[in-house]
Amino acid sequence: MLDNSPAVLRQDVGAVALLTLNRPAARNSLSLAMIAALQAALDEVGGDEAIRCVVIAAEGRAFSAGHDLKEIAAHRTDADGGAAFFAETMAACSAVMQSVVTLPQPVVAAVEGIATAAGCQLAASCDLVVAAEGAGFCTPGVDIGLFCTTPGVALARAVPRKAAMEMLLLGEMIPADEALRMGLVNRVVPAGEALPAAMALAQRVAARSAVALRMGKRGFNMQAAQPLAEAYATAGQVMVENLLAADAAEGIGAFLGKRKPEWRHE
Amino acid sequence: MLDNSPAVLRQDVGAVALLTLNRPAARNSLSLAMIAALQAALDEVGGDEAIRCVVIAAEGRAFSAGHDLKEIAAHRTDADGGAAFFAETMAACSAVMQSVVTLPQPVVAAVEGIATAAGCQLAASCDLVVAAEGAGFCTPGVDIGLFCTTPGVALARAVPRKAAMEMLLLGEMIPADEALRMGLVNRVVPAGEALPAAMALAQRVAARSAVALRMGKRGFNMQAAQPLAEAYATAGQVMVENLLAADAAEGIGAFLGKRKPEWRHE
Amino acid sequence: MLDNSPAVLRQDVGAVALLTLNRPAARNSLSLAMIAALQAALDEVGGDEAIRCVVIAAEGRAFSAGHDLKEIAAHRTDADGGAAFFAETMAACSAVMQSVVTLPQPVVAAVEGIATAAGCQLAASCDLVVAAEGAGFCTPGVDIGLFCTTPGVALARAVPRKAAMEMLLLGEMIPADEALRMGLVNRVVPAGEALPAAMALAQRVAARSAVALRMGKRGFNMQAAQPLAEAYATAGQVMVENLLAADAAEGIGAFLGKRKPEWRHE
Repeated sequence: MLDNSPAVLRQDVGAVALLTLNRPAARNSLSLAMIAALQAALDEVGGDEAIRCVVIAAEGRAFSAGHDLKEIAAHRTDADGGAAFFAETMAACSAVMQSVVTLPQPVVAAVEGIATAAGCQLAASCDLVVAAEGAGFCTPGVDIGLFCTTPGVALARAVPRKAAMEMLLLGEMIPADEALRMGLVNRVVPAGEALPAAMALAQRVAARSAVALRMGKRGFNMQAAQPLAEAYATAGQVMVENLLAADAAEGIGAFLGKRKPEWRHE
Repeated sequence: MLDNSPAVLRQDVGAVALLTLNRPAARNSLSLAMIAALQAALDEVGGDEAIRCVVIAAEGRAFSAGHDLKEIAAHRTDADGGAAFFAETMAACSAVMQSVVTLPQPVVAAVEGIATAAGCQLAASCDLVVAAEGAGFCTPGVDIGLFCTTPGVALARAVPRKAAMEMLLLGEMIPADEALRMGLVNRVVPAGEALPAAMALAQRVAARSAVALRMGKRGFNMQAAQPLAEAYATAGQVMVENLLAADAAEGIGAFLGKRKPEWRHE
Repeated sequence: MLDNSPAVLRQDVGAVALLTLNRPAARNSLSLAMIAALQAALDEVGGDEAIRCVVIAAEGRAFSAGHDLKEIAAHRTDADGGAAFFAETMAACSAVMQSVVTLPQPVVAAVEGIATAAGCQLAASCDLVVAAEGAGFCTPGVDIGLFCTTPGVALARAVPRKAAMEMLLLGEMIPADEALRMGLVNRVVPAGEALPAAMALAQRVAARSAVALRMGKRGFNMQAAQPLAEAYATAGQVMVENLLAADAAEGIGAFLGKRKPEWRHE
């Protein structure tokens, strides 16, 4: 079972960084090692000025099966019954999910197969989700006495309240087309095409101004968490900064001059 | 019109408590007496460790027609024009709705017929809603000069903003299938089958670990009201506690051992 | 290009004020002058006790194309590179959008043609939106290096998170029927019928009690921004005040007496 290949692969295609969960035999479960590898990859990508959009995909038949239950069970024999390990796992997992949200670049999930528990949370944390037919989203913690409370953080912010509660209370597998209706997924494509479709979407995003994308994603998340008047104060300030950036001058000039803009990708 | 039967009936089926609004002749309107009876039933059920899920249903052709307008009108001749009575009614009604939300156990509404005004609010306050074909949801206060402001609290948290405003401003009856599309309802079943369908759903919920359900519902509502970082701090703490509970050890052990878990239902 | 006609027309039809954006040649772009005219019209209407509902519509083939990019580009030669003008524009635009939300009367948008960037924001800020087939909603700022951050404030509060991010990151035109599914639009009508349909809806709203509508809209927005317990405290207080108003006594009395209510429209 020892696997010396990296747990997360990175491949850059133009200005898009493709991060691939690479433990197919373990159904890309979010072991502490996998979480650390994903965190490291996100940290690296987040600081890379050449990257304007990120795709998270997975090797094998599952996007991610959530936490590594064998790893969790093994720590029950720790002196503290696992308390320290569970706390470390939850802290690391919550941090990596928030890194997806706070990453300067937009993040697109490419989901083939199942995205369950923390795997569902990872998809739900992305800005956009492309799912293949046959993909399924599920928060089945109730079946093992462990309510999917942390996945619920991402779900509650992606889908209507009662849909989130239904997923959490029943733990049923939600097929891609129903996930689309709920708002958990942006696009459903034929089986096997999640990755190329997500990459195509990411390339369209990455063709835009880096400064606009960065200001925009950050500004969106800031204002969305604020009361209306504060949200407008935040957003208005971001707009003024964005207007004063070279890319907006170029973009508006190009639009008025009916020519193609050339972004400053330093 | 005197009715000595209890305003709310309780019947336990296994670990599911079925609460039935029992004033069909008054279309189960939420008179102060009905609110008090429902509050008492919820308080009792909430403290009952043997109950793992609750269903709220109704006798007769209406789920609930909302406040008792005759009772309200009668108090206009009070010395204060009804002010004290109205304040008492609103306080009691808002308290019972919040008790549905904060009840330790998940609550499923079984809606046949109309759920209007505070009746709609009661359904919207439940964690899950099963509606029968022919059921209708409506906040028609505008028709009587009394905007459904308190029902709007539950609606605003269940459906998209413009859908809630449309219901509140127009007061139109929303059929079950449209309520499903909006997110107000989880399941639509044939007429007459709301109760058995809700009971079946509740039994599935109740087959799960009591501790996971309680931690999960409470944790969900806590985190959903918080900013993202706080939400993850809350949810992470709940997960660690849940992982340390006996039922999670049993559930994960059973999953890894490919056997059926046996929950500690003390 | 000089146009001496008012930038915003007002026409009252009964208790409904119809405000029409009147710069069709400029696709009703939100120049500083247009924003000022709309602000003045809203201020006037908001203080007019005879008006119980407002419709915002537009002359010509576009609802509104958003900010006036020529005006923005022209100010790049200001001594400060446009900073003061951009700040003034954003402050004025954010103020007018919030005036739509805080206007005492409900506001219905009638959208024919495109509603892009701040034009999409204006529609999204209205309480209800009627769109004609062929109408389109779009936040294409990313195409010109200027992320639609302020339109995102209105979008984030109208549609699910991932739908908003998709509109903002891709800038694609969303047709009316998809906008309906998202929750951005309440009704889709045949091309050319947005205005009569919106007026009909507004007349139905305006047939209701002015005091109930004003208390209701204000109360809805207040409680929707609050945690649950505070929301119920707010909403309960509004309900008691509403119950003590003459129109509620009349409305409830009329309902119980099976007669038509007569509202006090002072």
